Amino acid sequence: MIHDFIYDIPVRVYFGRDQLKNLGPELRKYGTRVLMTYGGGSIKRTGLYDKVVREIRGAGLELFELSGIAPNPRIDSVREGARMCKEHNIDVLLAVGGGSTIDATKFMAAGACVDFDPWDFFDLEKWAPIEKALPIVSILTLSATGSEMDCGGVISNPETNDKIGRMEPLTLLPKASFLDPSNTFTVSAYQTACGSSDILSHIFEVYFNMDQDMYMLDCFMEGLMKTVIKYAPIAIREPENYEARANLMWTSSWAINGFVDGGKRQAWSCHPMEHELSAFYDITHGLGLAILTPRWMEYCLDETTVSKYVQFGTNVFGIDPQLPPMEIAHKAIDALSGFLFGTLGLKRTLPEVGIDRTHFATMARKAVQGGTLKGFKPLKQADVEAIYEMCMK
Amino acid sequence: MIHDFIYDIPVRVYFGRDQLKNLGPELRKYGTRVLMTYGGGSIKRTGLYDKVVREIRGAGLELFELSGIAPNPRIDSVREGARMCKEHNIDVLLAVGGGSTIDATKFMAAGACVDFDPWDFFDLEKWAPIEKALPIVSILTLSATGSEMDCGGVISNPETNDKIGRMEPLTLLPKASFLDPSNTFTVSAYQTACGSSDILSHIFEVYFNMDQDMYMLDCFMEGLMKTVIKYAPIAIREPENYEARANLMWTSSWAINGFVDGGKRQAWSCHPMEHELSAFYDITHGLGLAILTPRWMEYCLDETTVSKYVQFGTNVFGIDPQLPPMEIAHKAIDALSGFLFGTLGLKRTLPEVGIDRTHFATMARKAVQGGTLKGFKPLKQADVEAIYEMCMK
Repeated sequence: MIHDFIYDIPVRVYFGRDQLKNLGPELRKYGTRVLMTYGGGSIKRTGLYDKVVREIRGAGLELFELSGIAPNPRIDSVREGARMCKEHNIDVLLAVGGGSTIDATKFMAAGACVDFDPWDFFDLEKWAPIEKALPIVSILTLSATGSEMDCGGVISNPETNDKIGRMEPLTLLPKASFLDPSNTFTVSAYQTACGSSDILSHIFEVYFNMDQDMYMLDCFMEGLMKTVIKYAPIAIREPENYEARANLMWTSSWAINGFVDGGKRQAWSCHPMEHELSAFYDITHGLGLAILTPRWMEYCLDETTVSKYVQFGTNVFGIDPQLPPMEIAHKAIDALSGFLFGTLGLKRTLPEVGIDRTHFATMARKAVQGGTLKGFKPLKQADVEAIYEMCMK
Repeated sequence: MIHDFIYDIPVRVYFGRDQLKNLGPELRKYGTRVLMTYGGGSIKRTGLYDKVVREIRGAGLELFELSGIAPNPRIDSVREGARMCKEHNIDVLLAVGGGSTIDATKFMAAGACVDFDPWDFFDLEKWAPIEKALPIVSILTLSATGSEMDCGGVISNPETNDKIGRMEPLTLLPKASFLDPSNTFTVSAYQTACGSSDILSHIFEVYFNMDQDMYMLDCFMEGLMKTVIKYAPIAIREPENYEARANLMWTSSWAINGFVDGGKRQAWSCHPMEHELSAFYDITHGLGLAILTPRWMEYCLDETTVSKYVQFGTNVFGIDPQLPPMEIAHKAIDALSGFLFGTLGLKRTLPEVGIDRTHFATMARKAVQGGTLKGFKPLKQADVEAIYEMCMK
């Protein structure tokens, strides 16, 4: 039975090269005092920083800035942003960057509205309510996490090796996002590959699932996968190919904005397993996902799940549907591995990225601390450890 | 070059069997005085009327009713609804029905806010601005027009044989729509076929176009087409098949809510040609589209357009991509004709639905009265007449 669901994604998306003229009016809807957040300063090198500042000042808005938001963003940035919002009486936050910057900014916006430490939003025992947040606008510079059109984020706490995600539909959805594919022209081949792996994983987490499918959404997900497979290599080869960057960018948003779920109540699998890798080793999220995903697929393959692999292999990779189902499934996993480790050039094993068995047990325990991962195939601590082990070679 | 666009679809969709409990709270957001609009009373036979009234009264809202909205809805209904809104100081309109009811209700909501005759919204010389409208909520009972998630509608004026569409993103988008697939269980085989033809046509109007494509959206459109082709026959054979009705319903919304456009600035072709057929002969819109579409495809096929047919034929109908392009194109049109006139059982020619050549010239002239139809292939009056002529046998 297809589940009931509520579809509600009121994010306004300004897509294209010539949209920044709408930034001032968009921000002005929410007030006059803007906190602009960004990462390590690449937006200054590319000139985007100057363009954004010009629009903000041209609209007569007052600008405050918080830079230095790191990949796998830390709770300290969130704390600092929340503090600045309170100190400067900020009306609206403008995140300029990739998912890390946007994620952190969402929780700054929420932290600005409470008196307690924002880590209480992530502490599994407290899970403090997020009832309000300041309005958030984003300018995306990396196609990957989908944070520009969803209501969630993931924050790390290096003191505790925690990396925890949270979604809040009513408060954390950006009011508007600016998606200019040309802002991703300078994304490196490596980051383009990792972002593409992240997009694919968002789709896999929903598509490979035993909960009720809706055919029209499965078709959509297959289209999104084919788009990544077609355009990621082009974007790597020709970083300024607008068509490739545009397709990857719009796909990144739709992979995770909630539309593909269509009422499915699936748990995710690879993301919780990966969050432990990057919490302990600070590796790039999309790289960790690439290493884990084909092994997770192998681990979950059996007679009860094979039909989903057949659908995937034939519809996405064009594998001959006349072959035996198990053969199609293995060919599909091989094709995906070929794409991730061959075409995209990502590392294939944990040792290649400096991860050994030291923390496998701890990471696996933490990955399931919220309970068994009831995704495609239920995964307990021992299953997660086994999948980590498969990534050793 | 992919065009810039603004994506903004803030319609809240309550999808599924058990969503009516949200109706009272949703309406209450906008006030307490509700005008409920519907058609010929089928919602009384199915019991939906009673359920809706119970929710409205249970929420302590005051209910007013306007029934009798006809297929190809007339300006008279719009006038009457606008008058009632003013007389009873209505806060929110609730359309319960298919596209005709929802379309008419949108312009009642706009007409309630002006002092002039609502036909001035459609008079091509006046084209009165629509700056305000009362809030609109819909409960969908027929999967076809997509009016539940778009900002447009089509209104007929029998006095002038005019049937004119208009879109207003800022004012006419429903605030919320309730999509319960089981509310379409009683839709007849014929109306299911016509609705499916309408959905397909909405996709074709965008897909078959020489303006810049975005691959990820083309993939999505192909998925929507495959969904209609897979599930329309099931819904006809098993009217209470929830999975089939659900897939058709969600597809009808996404075929035309604007997402698939992705900045394409294409004009439509079959819809303006069909609007003249149903303006002059009051035939079912989806039936007119079914008759016109394969002929329009044949008419537009040449060396400059054939690649789109190849994409369509191979991706949607699985035609062998090794065949010569023109052969694939003809096979694709044949496959579509087989679906519409064979599988769905729709009539194939204009004479079969009681239309002869009498008004061809007038209808063709009116179809292009806004200018050449600059769609897939530019169509002038003589082209439209030629396509009507192709529908004679």
